Amino acid sequence: MSREICVFIDELEPRHRDQITAAAAGAMTVRFFGKKEKAEAMACAREAEVIYAMSRELLAGAEKLKWYCSASAGMDDLSAQPEMLPAGCLVTNSNVYGLTIAEHTVMVALMLLRRMPEYEARMRERDWRGGLPIRSIHGLTVAMVGTGQIGRCIAQRFHALGAAKIVGVNRSGRKAEGFDEIVPVEELDRVLPEVDMVILAVPGTAQTVRLLSRERIALLRPEALVINVGRGTAIDQAALAEALNAGRIAGAALDVVAQEPLPADDPLWTAKNLILTPHVSGTFTLAYTVDRNVDSFCEDLANYIAGRPLAHRVDLTRGY
Amino acid sequence: MSREICVFIDELEPRHRDQITAAAAGAMTVRFFGKKEKAEAMACAREAEVIYAMSRELLAGAEKLKWYCSASAGMDDLSAQPEMLPAGCLVTNSNVYGLTIAEHTVMVALMLLRRMPEYEARMRERDWRGGLPIRSIHGLTVAMVGTGQIGRCIAQRFHALGAAKIVGVNRSGRKAEGFDEIVPVEELDRVLPEVDMVILAVPGTAQTVRLLSRERIALLRPEALVINVGRGTAIDQAALAEALNAGRIAGAALDVVAQEPLPADDPLWTAKNLILTPHVSGTFTLAYTVDRNVDSFCEDLANYIAGRPLAHRVDLTRGY
Repeated sequence: MSREICVFIDELEPRHRDQITAAAAGAMTVRFFGKKEKAEAMACAREAEVIYAMSRELLAGAEKLKWYCSASAGMDDLSAQPEMLPAGCLVTNSNVYGLTIAEHTVMVALMLLRRMPEYEARMRERDWRGGLPIRSIHGLTVAMVGTGQIGRCIAQRFHALGAAKIVGVNRSGRKAEGFDEIVPVEELDRVLPEVDMVILAVPGTAQTVRLLSRERIALLRPEALVINVGRGTAIDQAALAEALNAGRIAGAALDVVAQEPLPADDPLWTAKNLILTPHVSGTFTLAYTVDRNVDSFCEDLANYIAGRPLAHRVDLTRGY
Repeated sequence: MSREICVFIDELEPRHRDQITAAAAGAMTVRFFGKKEKAEAMACAREAEVIYAMSRELLAGAEKLKWYCSASAGMDDLSAQPEMLPAGCLVTNSNVYGLTIAEHTVMVALMLLRRMPEYEARMRERDWRGGLPIRSIHGLTVAMVGTGQIGRCIAQRFHALGAAKIVGVNRSGRKAEGFDEIVPVEELDRVLPEVDMVILAVPGTAQTVRLLSRERIALLRPEALVINVGRGTAIDQAALAEALNAGRIAGAALDVVAQEPLPADDPLWTAKNLILTPHVSGTFTLAYTVDRNVDSFCEDLANYIAGRPLAHRVDLTRGY
């Protein structure tokens, strides 16, 4: 029986299918399924050696699986339940969301600095008044919490726009390209009182839960802005809403929240100077992201067929 | 009697006043006035040799004036009425708005590309749905109409964010740094069908009135976006509103309109996929802009006192 690859991603174009089929190089058979072919995809997955999919639902019953490539970057769910995979199954992800998440971050940063939510409210009232004091990315001091591919893409754009200093914060303080300084997360308390902006792009792990705690929010300057594009669990949301409403910090932009969708009665809906978006910073609807995602899978498919180590392995015990 | 400089700018800090006084180097006397001291400023202006001001109101009666430095960049009003100035009076402006206008342009470009107005409308309804197809600055083809300081600052940022091609459009087709190609405005019709985005940063002159005419709007692709940060007169607004409402172009962001404030019954208030802002892209409330504005004046003040040519002269017959 032939060795099968089950691909279950709705957004693929014919050119992506051709690219994957070519990468399989006749050594394996590739079968593609869209959203409406879920039953067929589930059946295929039960026999498949390789699954490349955004969601986890195909994993139930995939007992012959040797390699699961996740089209999404976040691995918190699989890390919490590694038994979703057969023992010894290789896991990779497609961490290609840096560009789109960095553009989202630049957008909301400028919206906060330039008081855009207030101007938009005036425009809705047909009130043509200017005059609000604004700020610039030029000269800004930023704490970039998370120095992976996403954090590096953000830092690159903030540098290009003239930010004065970008302090990368990661678990170990290990070096990463593109930051003016790197500090371990233990030193975050020293960094927070000095920055104009804190950007969070950390994976959802036990270590990142409430990383931006009530105590740490209290260390921020009144001018400080908070942006979260990683996982909602990384912020004490009640404390953030209180700080915003009391004017103890200047604003925030959350693309992720602890519970999604955000519950209808959550205080964040009405918090002052808060820009909310429904987990779309890393949206798969950007063509560039789909292209790079397929590139990343095909690179490892060639590795897999040749018996080489996979380039995009995820360590589920670490969570990323 | 001493040679007097009358400075009438509300936003100056003590350090700016010190800087200007130092630049006068004892050769001239500098007097500073805030918004509340308008009567005193008017009296000073009548005797002044030099005026440095944002507004034009001091010019009435300033018969001894030899040099007027405009803190604003736009000179359309003075070009239309040069008799506001005594014959032979030198005119300079402070064209230091590139950074803040470029940041505004990046912000609204990303908001349009990433469907932010639609997501904001969903958030106001507490509707946590994603999934809208979005686009990126990465790979974009842009027509940048106006290749002065503002156009160059915008092009620099779009290149840094990965734009594929930026075509500069100016009156003569003369070379300008930082563009992939420069074409004269006569060739605009050839450029418009090829671009993802048209950005207008042109001064208000007889030549720029309805530069983006109904006929030219019809040349744009359905995916095209229009951004105007120059003068509202440069666009046929009725044709733009119609094209937006009919979905013949994908969106627009106007920081300037032909008549400001925008009249309460103007069709632009309700046009689809339009981001309006009340002429704030070049707001003087950004500290960086005030700093560079004062630098620019002080540079020419030193030139003036030494009898050298002024660096920031404006040609009122040309309009910029």
